[in-house]
Amino acid sequence: MSHRDLASSARSSKTIVQMANKVVEFDFNKYMHSKALAVNEAMDKVITLGYPQKLFESMRYSLLAGGKRVRPVLCIAACELVGGTEELAMPTACAIEMIHTMTLIHDDLLCIDNDDLRRGNPTNHKVFGEDTALLAGLALHSFAFEHIALSTSKTVGTNRILRIVSELSRATGSEGIVGGQFLDIASEGDPSVDVEAVEWVHAHKTSILLECSAVCGAIIGGASEDKIERTRRYARCVGLLFQVVDDILDATKSSKELGKTAGKDLVSDKATYPKLMGLEKAREFADELLNRAKGELSCFDPAKVAPLLGLADYIASREK
Amino acid sequence: MSHRDLASSARSSKTIVQMANKVVEFDFNKYMHSKALAVNEAMDKVITLGYPQKLFESMRYSLLAGGKRVRPVLCIAACELVGGTEELAMPTACAIEMIHTMTLIHDDLLCIDNDDLRRGNPTNHKVFGEDTALLAGLALHSFAFEHIALSTSKTVGTNRILRIVSELSRATGSEGIVGGQFLDIASEGDPSVDVEAVEWVHAHKTSILLECSAVCGAIIGGASEDKIERTRRYARCVGLLFQVVDDILDATKSSKELGKTAGKDLVSDKATYPKLMGLEKAREFADELLNRAKGELSCFDPAKVAPLLGLADYIASREK
Repeated sequence: MSHRDLASSARSSKTIVQMANKVVEFDFNKYMHSKALAVNEAMDKVITLGYPQKLFESMRYSLLAGGKRVRPVLCIAACELVGGTEELAMPTACAIEMIHTMTLIHDDLLCIDNDDLRRGNPTNHKVFGEDTALLAGLALHSFAFEHIALSTSKTVGTNRILRIVSELSRATGSEGIVGGQFLDIASEGDPSVDVEAVEWVHAHKTSILLECSAVCGAIIGGASEDKIERTRRYARCVGLLFQVVDDILDATKSSKELGKTAGKDLVSDKATYPKLMGLEKAREFADELLNRAKGELSCFDPAKVAPLLGLADYIASREK
Repeated sequence: MSHRDLASSARSSKTIVQMANKVVEFDFNKYMHSKALAVNEAMDKVITLGYPQKLFESMRYSLLAGGKRVRPVLCIAACELVGGTEELAMPTACAIEMIHTMTLIHDDLLCIDNDDLRRGNPTNHKVFGEDTALLAGLALHSFAFEHIALSTSKTVGTNRILRIVSELSRATGSEGIVGGQFLDIASEGDPSVDVEAVEWVHAHKTSILLECSAVCGAIIGGASEDKIERTRRYARCVGLLFQVVDDILDATKSSKELGKTAGKDLVSDKATYPKLMGLEKAREFADELLNRAKGELSCFDPAKVAPLLGLADYIASREK
């Protein structure tokens, strides 16, 4: 039985996994919840209230505002998949969530999306002001690199850490999130935008940090180059899948069902997958991405692959 | 004859230095100019026009807009002082200037200082828009770390590079520039601000990146811990000196003499050294800082100390 078959029906969070000739049930939601809790605890300890206090309050406000912690969990899961531990991956996992939080704070600013709400709470700049929100984001950006450099060096070799610094900085900058965000804004309302351009935006704005999370986890865990690249391709598919599903939900669900404004993409004249390829083809593309993601995991230890299979299913089948 | 005596009279850019029993003349302006040129050339090659083009144009617009390149030159000079080379220090020197440029772009934004002009040219957001300016700054922030991680590892050991990543990220974040910038904004117009608070702001907003530049240069060059710390203290004094002189110039020179708006601090009700300790005491404090900075260099090779002595004199005696 292949990994694909083992996990493909997991609409609930349960995945059936074959471990050492025994078939056991893997509860993805439970796994996700316990890892997210560990990440939250670690971040709470890492960024305590310093001086100037209001700046740290602003950093903590967004960093500890909840969220599913998909990226840090992915980092930890990839590390465990290749034989590493949660403890080894945790500083990098937290650093990646700091970078993610920075992008959320800055995306919400007046000069970008001008959003008032994030995860049901007032956005950072609505509570602390535009200047503090900008600075809090920058502080998280810097702290992410400081945290990796300082916390990991005792347990993970310096070569691996430097590679992580390189992966994370590339994923964050002009060839990563910033580049994707820039083109997303620049192409809004542009009728010449095609599927390729949309894919470029999502690959850089969304997928690349998921990809980076998985790759960094694999590097920390000591994976071979081949396995690092397979992890990268898995996460790239999952990242794109996330966006395709997001677009489908926006086009098909009500605001009540989503818990946020539905049909936003249509109103803002944004190029989406359903708009560019039709709803049916977008659904087929999502299935294809899910299969491709799982296919990349076929060479890994079956006993350890359940979390990443579960994550792909979770992203494919989410309803909001 | 001590270093202090050798260089203290250098109101022009010429410094007399004793090298191997010969007294030679060191032309600081020439040194500064040639190093700044080398830095500009290196940065021009490192950040070329990529995709999305407008984002890279925005990054290059501010990065290559001129400026004295004090920080990268300080990094190179400190590296050469302890036996390293310009080539070894160059990637870090460029990275530090990227971080500096990022802070300038963000400081000028509407939500911080709302400035229209920088070095006589329209500010980044005036040319490219607020959103692009914010993203260009972030991209430079990330690229600085990527550049250090990628370019230096072949020539400088990974332990030293990781230490540089740690120094630079700390200097940039909440315990560095961002913290200083935050408190500077928060304390504007606050009558309770005293000399200590002003010093905290400047130590974090201005001095820390100068300090980091010198320290990183010394680390790359392979200095002993004692010499790294002496370099740090030298640069800390020079950084504070820079600010004290800036305050004195703002209070005593005309806009025409300065080439920028004079008396700005008075208008914005900002706490400055002349305001808090009186003009005469501020001048005495500047002299004391210059002497302290030079004193920290007394243990270094006299044949190599001229650039750092010259830099301290240059900052103390500048007239605009």
